[in-house]
Amino acid sequence: MEPAAPPVWVVGGTGYSGLEAVRLLGRHPGFRLAHVIASPGAGERDLSGIDPLFAPGAIRSVPLSPNLLEEPPAAALLALPDDAAAGLAADLLERGVRVVDLSGAFRIREASHYPAHCGFEHPKPALLAEAVYGLSEWQRQHIASARLVANPGCYPTATLLALLPLERAGLIDPQSPVVVDGKSGATGAGRRLEAAYLFAEANENCRPYSVLDHRHAPEIAQALGFGPERPVWFAPHVLPLSRGLMTTLYLRLRRGVGGPDITAALSGSYRSSPFVRLLGEQKWPEIRGVVRTNRCDIGWTVANGAAVVVSAIDNLMKGAAGQAIQNLNLMFGREETEGLPS
Amino acid sequence: MEPAAPPVWVVGGTGYSGLEAVRLLGRHPGFRLAHVIASPGAGERDLSGIDPLFAPGAIRSVPLSPNLLEEPPAAALLALPDDAAAGLAADLLERGVRVVDLSGAFRIREASHYPAHCGFEHPKPALLAEAVYGLSEWQRQHIASARLVANPGCYPTATLLALLPLERAGLIDPQSPVVVDGKSGATGAGRRLEAAYLFAEANENCRPYSVLDHRHAPEIAQALGFGPERPVWFAPHVLPLSRGLMTTLYLRLRRGVGGPDITAALSGSYRSSPFVRLLGEQKWPEIRGVVRTNRCDIGWTVANGAAVVVSAIDNLMKGAAGQAIQNLNLMFGREETEGLPS
Amino acid sequence: MEPAAPPVWVVGGTGYSGLEAVRLLGRHPGFRLAHVIASPGAGERDLSGIDPLFAPGAIRSVPLSPNLLEEPPAAALLALPDDAAAGLAADLLERGVRVVDLSGAFRIREASHYPAHCGFEHPKPALLAEAVYGLSEWQRQHIASARLVANPGCYPTATLLALLPLERAGLIDPQSPVVVDGKSGATGAGRRLEAAYLFAEANENCRPYSVLDHRHAPEIAQALGFGPERPVWFAPHVLPLSRGLMTTLYLRLRRGVGGPDITAALSGSYRSSPFVRLLGEQKWPEIRGVVRTNRCDIGWTVANGAAVVVSAIDNLMKGAAGQAIQNLNLMFGREETEGLPS
Amino acid sequence: MEPAAPPVWVVGGTGYSGLEAVRLLGRHPGFRLAHVIASPGAGERDLSGIDPLFAPGAIRSVPLSPNLLEEPPAAALLALPDDAAAGLAADLLERGVRVVDLSGAFRIREASHYPAHCGFEHPKPALLAEAVYGLSEWQRQHIASARLVANPGCYPTATLLALLPLERAGLIDPQSPVVVDGKSGATGAGRRLEAAYLFAEANENCRPYSVLDHRHAPEIAQALGFGPERPVWFAPHVLPLSRGLMTTLYLRLRRGVGGPDITAALSGSYRSSPFVRLLGEQKWPEIRGVVRTNRCDIGWTVANGAAVVVSAIDNLMKGAAGQAIQNLNLMFGREETEGLPS
Repeated sequence: MEPAAPPVWVVGGTGYSGLEAVRLLGRHPGFRLAHVIASPGAGERDLSGIDPLFAPGAIRSVPLSPNLLEEPPAAALLALPDDAAAGLAADLLERGVRVVDLSGAFRIREASHYPAHCGFEHPKPALLAEAVYGLSEWQRQHIASARLVANPGCYPTATLLALLPLERAGLIDPQSPVVVDGKSGATGAGRRLEAAYLFAEANENCRPYSVLDHRHAPEIAQALGFGPERPVWFAPHVLPLSRGLMTTLYLRLRRGVGGPDITAALSGSYRSSPFVRLLGEQKWPEIRGVVRTNRCDIGWTVANGAAVVVSAIDNLMKGAAGQAIQNLNLMFGREETEGLPS
Repeated sequence: MEPAAPPVWVVGGTGYSGLEAVRLLGRHPGFRLAHVIASPGAGERDLSGIDPLFAPGAIRSVPLSPNLLEEPPAAALLALPDDAAAGLAADLLERGVRVVDLSGAFRIREASHYPAHCGFEHPKPALLAEAVYGLSEWQRQHIASARLVANPGCYPTATLLALLPLERAGLIDPQSPVVVDGKSGATGAGRRLEAAYLFAEANENCRPYSVLDHRHAPEIAQALGFGPERPVWFAPHVLPLSRGLMTTLYLRLRRGVGGPDITAALSGSYRSSPFVRLLGEQKWPEIRGVVRTNRCDIGWTVANGAAVVVSAIDNLMKGAAGQAIQNLNLMFGREETEGLPS
Repeated sequence: MEPAAPPVWVVGGTGYSGLEAVRLLGRHPGFRLAHVIASPGAGERDLSGIDPLFAPGAIRSVPLSPNLLEEPPAAALLALPDDAAAGLAADLLERGVRVVDLSGAFRIREASHYPAHCGFEHPKPALLAEAVYGLSEWQRQHIASARLVANPGCYPTATLLALLPLERAGLIDPQSPVVVDGKSGATGAGRRLEAAYLFAEANENCRPYSVLDHRHAPEIAQALGFGPERPVWFAPHVLPLSRGLMTTLYLRLRRGVGGPDITAALSGSYRSSPFVRLLGEQKWPEIRGVVRTNRCDIGWTVANGAAVVVSAIDNLMKGAAGQAIQNLNLMFGREETEGLPS
Repeated sequence: MEPAAPPVWVVGGTGYSGLEAVRLLGRHPGFRLAHVIASPGAGERDLSGIDPLFAPGAIRSVPLSPNLLEEPPAAALLALPDDAAAGLAADLLERGVRVVDLSGAFRIREASHYPAHCGFEHPKPALLAEAVYGLSEWQRQHIASARLVANPGCYPTATLLALLPLERAGLIDPQSPVVVDGKSGATGAGRRLEAAYLFAEANENCRPYSVLDHRHAPEIAQALGFGPERPVWFAPHVLPLSRGLMTTLYLRLRRGVGGPDITAALSGSYRSSPFVRLLGEQKWPEIRGVVRTNRCDIGWTVANGAAVVVSAIDNLMKGAAGQAIQNLNLMFGREETEGLPS
């Protein structure tokens, strides 16, 4: 007999990633959505008032009370601001709750990163070494046994799924920078009430931001094992679409490397990865091919020593809540694909 | 007394660029829109049936007849497919008509380019040497006296306005590739009846195409004077918006070059260029800041020897019809900005 | 032991409705998608070339061959043009295949309707009397035993789910017209290669068509039992969105009828209808609340003898393929909601 | 010699309507944009920080100071909230400034309307009788001599331009309601920082609001001279587009009235109105046909005693700032079309 599904919390369930996690867990056969916990300071809310896809009265977010903490869940997905997540994760771990953190609070191992790039002193630097970087396809074993998973950023997910196979196979010229041109829909910024995200200002527009200065660049560099001598040049752009993300990667290949080497490295890496779809040389992913799925589509081309690799994901799925569920599946011994649209 | 405004034709006035040229010339104080000539094979049409911004009955496109050719205009803007433009331009030049060609028929000086990249043998290779590349801000004198102006492609226009000052000032490391990530709205493809351009397929989507294989890359390289040893890595993407185009350029700078050098090179180049707006370091253009204007907005940043430069234009204005009118102004001694929204 | 899932065909599986039906049946636990049959004249195709959400090589559409007809399925969903559907339905019925027809070929019982409104003489008028109008919530019994179900049009579905309860309860003033203002996304027109459906022309636009002259008006009138003395004034509009449909209904109520009567009539009608969600008085549906679900959301208000009722559906789901699957569920004794997102 | 252009203020120039007024006046040959005055409480701002179409440093909005009031302009356009506009208009009139008010503060003549529908006691009820309702095409003489013009609402403008000719000609059945289905882009709501106007929530959506309870309904009724026995049933909807507005009007005609009567009434009314374009029977306006113009496009059809009339305007132009400039032209004896795109 199948044992009772482990109870799971979604904390901060009223942002776009949190809502997506609620939606996925609500129909997941292997887990029970025990509570949706409101962000600190936010009161109780009916989720249908935030997203009309929820039925009125069906799901409410509730403030985190001492009472609730008396009955801790088996796991919690945290969709909170970095500093709030850092503190709460520690509390939950102490109570035996396994944590998948969707924020940036545990992605970078070096504590000095946080004051410089995230604006806060890390409250639990000891946990940074323990946290497992949750790029599912590359960390299945470590994730399976982890207490604390740092769910990767959306841009790093798309970038690393394309680059790690090439870097591990030694195909990239180490003297040249890796260029990552990022393009993401408006949900990438979260549910922020800023004029730049109003319909009439984001519509019919494209806008770069944090060019050469986005915290996803060090996250990508760390995962690739790049030191300061191997720069990642990253410029993200906001596109006028709701969900979906694409990264276009420009690389100089090592002398003698060609298209078949790229193809072989990618194929070899993802033979048993149901969420990575290799489209082939000169076959290009489109955002509409991955939206509302947990898939990453990858296409590539090689010419005169250069490679361009393009990968596309849904920023709220494989780039956030979907990968978090995928990691939860790994942590609790479920099928990796369970409860996830492919 | 001001002499009568010279008569001008728009040939191929029913595509997006042609319609824009018709609109601009229709209210230009310095020229008279004498005729809108239909593309070869297309019959007479009321333009209001194509774009409801035109009043019914106000402007018709007519087939090019021998009668019409008896009264040639002072100038003609050609918005035709490459091969049709190549032939017609020669005919018109023989009748003393000055030509601004919006197609790719005269942009590349080397005749062998055309069979390889454009699919046709150039019918008038002798004209390739004569044609002036019409990047207005960099060719004012030559354009002023030209019989035949090859209006630049949309991506080359945005790219070159940003790069030429840096290259001429010797700021770019010649050992490194120049990466050009292109993003353009759906009108960039012209008025093509293909499923990929249907609303329900282009909406909520982003799609790369012709990666490392787009004919705008040699056009950019030629204008920069790059030989084969200096590659331009170019990947264009279609965005879900109607008009507007952005190029994000990634460069390695020569040792010792910094932000102020970039700023100085750009400022020095465009002191008297009303259509180039330099936003400054870490100030980023947005497509909505240039749409329906003939302006190019440029922003940049420098970090650790790398520069990212972003430029934005309206693909139908500065990227096509607007620059054609700007060139016409130069050819006929009018104010460069006349008849153009800024 | 559960018997083997009955095999089903989707015929015409390359339009938007057909693709949606393929997607739904492909993961339906109660049916087996035996074949996707191409529209007459269309060749074999990999569906991933039409919609990148399909994996390359996963599903192909094949021409209808005599061989295939030797092994007829248990049921077929027809997503074809009206006249093609009319002929094929008859052939399939003769072979014992139960048919759900998504076209307009069997919706109107009166044969004289077809030459006048659909441009063809009906080839099988005898079937018009047999066809069951497949508005699931109102015909469950008849659908369960039907050989041939005429799946309702998208606008009639949204309109009738809102109006039938009010009309059956006698709340609508019979002397006044019923006004139906329709608003639908671009997939409502099908996958048509017409300039009006190009991104750059449908984007940032709204356009009425077939005003007071759309064939969905007689379909609505027939289902309501309205004779010529009770007009339905219907004007559909194309909105710049991919999927989703809204109808805004304006009614004069019989003297003395108020909001509670409306509420009671609606609640009474849909107590056991999982796909109809009554939002309440002055609670308004939004298209984003129903997209990608098989649900119909309804809101209403009453003031001074007038009622406005608004209903929203996904035109490809409850307005086409979703309702077809719902009907298939009813026909084969499955749970009404099986295989359908709610 | 042409006298110096009269100085004009735009007050509240940082909302969408105010920005549009600034843009239009900035290039108007007949007026001088003397100052852009910030909304009460808003500080000094460079308009380029709000809308990148403005050049950095070119135009600033400044708080209204006593100093400024010492040099009052010839006229002021007020783009403020109702209650702020009501107070300021009175102050300016006392200083001899002619006022065009874009808010709803002076549109309804009956003072009791304001507490009930607008949430404030009108501070200057005496001015309500003096204010001229600025529907330009119907009030040219009164506007020409007005001190205070109440610029009409966007929906009333589109509705009344279509309906007034029919009502004045006695074509509408007085026993039947007039149904007005309104559809508008996201700028219709102003520049409001509410979640419902975020890109990711307004995109791919359509949403009704204030159904049978919008204050534009009494404005329409007043202008038509309808008493309580002649209801206007009005339901506005937000569409996923930036600018543009459409009203679809459903009318019962008086017995015997036909299409030619409608055509004649409309043609007779707008013979000398350059901003009204009559498309004809069964010719339908599109929002893309009027966007960024001051035009109203009207189409209509008649069937069995019913008429549907559709009109489209740009909500920020003919529906707000454009009509305000048109009125300013009339007030100062300029050409009606001066400074306005048609």
